[in-house]
Amino acid sequence: MPALDLTATSADLTRTICDIPSVSGDETTLADLIFAEVSALPHLEVYRDGDTIVARTTQGRAQRVAIAGHIDTVPINGNVPTRDVEMDGEPFIWGRGTVDMKGGVAVQLKLAAELVAPRVDITWMWYDHEEVDADLNGLTRLARTRPDLFRADFAILGEPSNGEVEGGCNGNLRAIVRTRGVRSHSARAWIGQNAIHSAAPVLARLAEYRPRDVPVEGLVYREGLNAVRISGGVAGNVIPDLCEIEVNYRFAPSRDAAEAEQHVRDVFAGFDVEIVDLAVGARPGLDAPLAQEFVAAVGAEPRPKYGWTDVARFSALGVPAVNYGPGDPHLAHHDEERVPVGQIDAVERGLRAWLTGS
Amino acid sequence: MPALDLTATSADLTRTICDIPSVSGDETTLADLIFAEVSALPHLEVYRDGDTIVARTTQGRAQRVAIAGHIDTVPINGNVPTRDVEMDGEPFIWGRGTVDMKGGVAVQLKLAAELVAPRVDITWMWYDHEEVDADLNGLTRLARTRPDLFRADFAILGEPSNGEVEGGCNGNLRAIVRTRGVRSHSARAWIGQNAIHSAAPVLARLAEYRPRDVPVEGLVYREGLNAVRISGGVAGNVIPDLCEIEVNYRFAPSRDAAEAEQHVRDVFAGFDVEIVDLAVGARPGLDAPLAQEFVAAVGAEPRPKYGWTDVARFSALGVPAVNYGPGDPHLAHHDEERVPVGQIDAVERGLRAWLTGS
Repeated sequence: MPALDLTATSADLTRTICDIPSVSGDETTLADLIFAEVSALPHLEVYRDGDTIVARTTQGRAQRVAIAGHIDTVPINGNVPTRDVEMDGEPFIWGRGTVDMKGGVAVQLKLAAELVAPRVDITWMWYDHEEVDADLNGLTRLARTRPDLFRADFAILGEPSNGEVEGGCNGNLRAIVRTRGVRSHSARAWIGQNAIHSAAPVLARLAEYRPRDVPVEGLVYREGLNAVRISGGVAGNVIPDLCEIEVNYRFAPSRDAAEAEQHVRDVFAGFDVEIVDLAVGARPGLDAPLAQEFVAAVGAEPRPKYGWTDVARFSALGVPAVNYGPGDPHLAHHDEERVPVGQIDAVERGLRAWLTGS
Repeated sequence: MPALDLTATSADLTRTICDIPSVSGDETTLADLIFAEVSALPHLEVYRDGDTIVARTTQGRAQRVAIAGHIDTVPINGNVPTRDVEMDGEPFIWGRGTVDMKGGVAVQLKLAAELVAPRVDITWMWYDHEEVDADLNGLTRLARTRPDLFRADFAILGEPSNGEVEGGCNGNLRAIVRTRGVRSHSARAWIGQNAIHSAAPVLARLAEYRPRDVPVEGLVYREGLNAVRISGGVAGNVIPDLCEIEVNYRFAPSRDAAEAEQHVRDVFAGFDVEIVDLAVGARPGLDAPLAQEFVAAVGAEPRPKYGWTDVARFSALGVPAVNYGPGDPHLAHHDEERVPVGQIDAVERGLRAWLTGS
C-alpha cells in the first residue's frame, strides 16, 4: 500500500482513501496509513488506540477545537473503486464512503498536515466503528480510556451536511409495544383472543400521530414517531397470542431522556411498552462564541441535524458541537453515494478560513 | 413388530396402534400391519395405494357407506407410549394419536373385522398424510387414481367429535392483505410513507368484525375472520415500505368459494388482497335418509363441525358426510392429548348398532 500524500488536493485524497476499503471492523489498513503520515508531522502530538487516531496541536492557544471524522463505511456494494462522474454539468466523485464520510476526512487530513499554526489549538480525531453498535464506536472506547482528549471549547463533526452547518441532532429512542392474547385453533377463534387485532389501536395512534416541530436555540427540529417493525403469528391456523410493534421516536434535543420515554409511554398508554434503546440528542450550541464565529467564517446558514450523530457525545460532555461536511446526507449508505467535488473544496475553504483567521 | 389383534377390545387396539409411531410420512409400519390383517379377512376386498388401504364389503347391498380415518399423527412430543390415566374418576388413554385419531381408527378396524355381513355395504378407508399439505393426503392421491372407490351414499369420518355427530364443516380461506409505502431513513420519516401505519385500518376492520352464525340444514355454523400473522419492517432506522397481514376466514358451508373470496375482498376493500388458500366447507347432509337413520341409531344430537376435515372431500363428490369419533377435538395436537375409554366404547356401540341394524 503506498503512503498517503497529504499534499494532494482534498478531492484526490477523497478518491485515494475511498479506494482503500474500510468497512466497519476492517479499518486497520487505512488507520495505519493515516497514523504513519500524521506521526511524521512535527507540529502534531499523536495518540493511537486501536484504529482511532488523535492528533493534537499544542500551540498553547486560549481555545481548543475538536474536529472529528469516522474512517469506516457501511458495506461496499459494487461501488468501489470510486469513479468521476458528471451530473447536470457538475463533477462528482461516486462510490462508497464519498459522502459518509471520507470526503470530510480527506479535508481534515489535508488541513491537519498544512495548518501548522492555527489560531485555535486543534484536536483532530479519526475513529473506527461508527456505522455499527455504539459499543464498538472508537469514540466510546476513547471516552473511557482517555476522556481528557475530549476537552475542547467547540467541536466539529465532518458528517455530510451538504457543506452547510447542521447544528446539534435529534435524540433517538426505540421501544417495543406489545399486545397479548390467548392462543386457540383458528377454527374456534372465540375460545382465544387475537393479539394482532388488539394491536389495532397501536397502529391507529401511530397513523394519527402528528409530530412536533420544535425550535431549539433558533433551529427547528422536526420530530418523528414511527413503527419500524411489526411481527406476530404462530401458524396459519392458530389465533396469535403476541404481537410486537417496534417504534422509533426521533425527538428534539430540548427533550431529555426521561421526557422522551414519558412521551412514548403517554402515546401508548394502556399498552405494554419496553424501551430498548435511548440516546438523547444534542442542542445546536450555536450560542457559543466560537460557534458563532465559525458560522460567520464559513458563511453558512445553520440548519438542524435530524439524524443522531456523534455531536451528541460532545454535547453530553458540555462541548458545543456541529456537523459540517461535504455530501448530501440522503445519499449516505446509498448505492449511488456520490459527493460534488465543489462541496469538498468549499468545506476545505470554509474550515481553512476559520482556522487560520484569514 | 407383532401382528395386530383385531379381536382385542377397541381400547386395547387404541393403545397398540398409538404405540406404533406413525407421524405423517412415517406410516408404513402401521399401514403394513393393517394391510396384513384386513387382507386375511375373506369378507373384504382390499386395495392398497402407498400407505392408504381400502377394504370393501361386497354383499350387494342397496346402499354403501364409506367409513374413513387417517392413520398419521402430528409429531410426538414425549407423549408416546400411551399411558392409562384417571381424571375425575374417569379412565383415559393418554398419548399422541389417542384423540386424533387412532381411537376412531381402532373402532373402525375392530368393526371391519367383525362385521362380515353388515346391512349396508361398507368401504373402509385408512389413509396417510392427513396432518400435512393437502397435496400429500392419501385421499387426494386415491381420488386421482381410483375415484370409483369414493362412490357411496353416505360417509362417516372418524375424526374426534366427543362421540357426538358433527355434521359437515366450515370452509377455510387464507389471504394476504398488503399495504405498501416508501422507504426512507427514520430520522427523516416525512420523506417516506409508513406501510405499517397504513395497515391501521386493516387491523381496525378485523377488530370490529362480527362473525356470522349461519344456520345450514338445521345446524348453526359459527364463522370467524382472523389475522394469523403480521409482518413488516426493514431495519430499526428505516421507514418500512411493506406490511403483510395473513388472514384466515372460516366460513359456513352455505357459502361457495366465489362468495367467500368476495366477502374477504369486501371486508378489505381498498387494500391489496391475495387469496393464497381456499377450501370450501361441507353441508351437514343430515337430510339424507341414511344420515337420519345414522343419527337416530347412535342416539346423538347433531352439531356443526367448525374445523375443516375430509368430510368436505366427500361432500364435494355429492356424498353426505359427518364426523363421528371418540375424543375432544380441543385436545387434538395437544401435548396432553387423551381420550376417555368410555367414548371409544360408545362410538363402537353406536357404529355397530347402526351397521348391524340391531
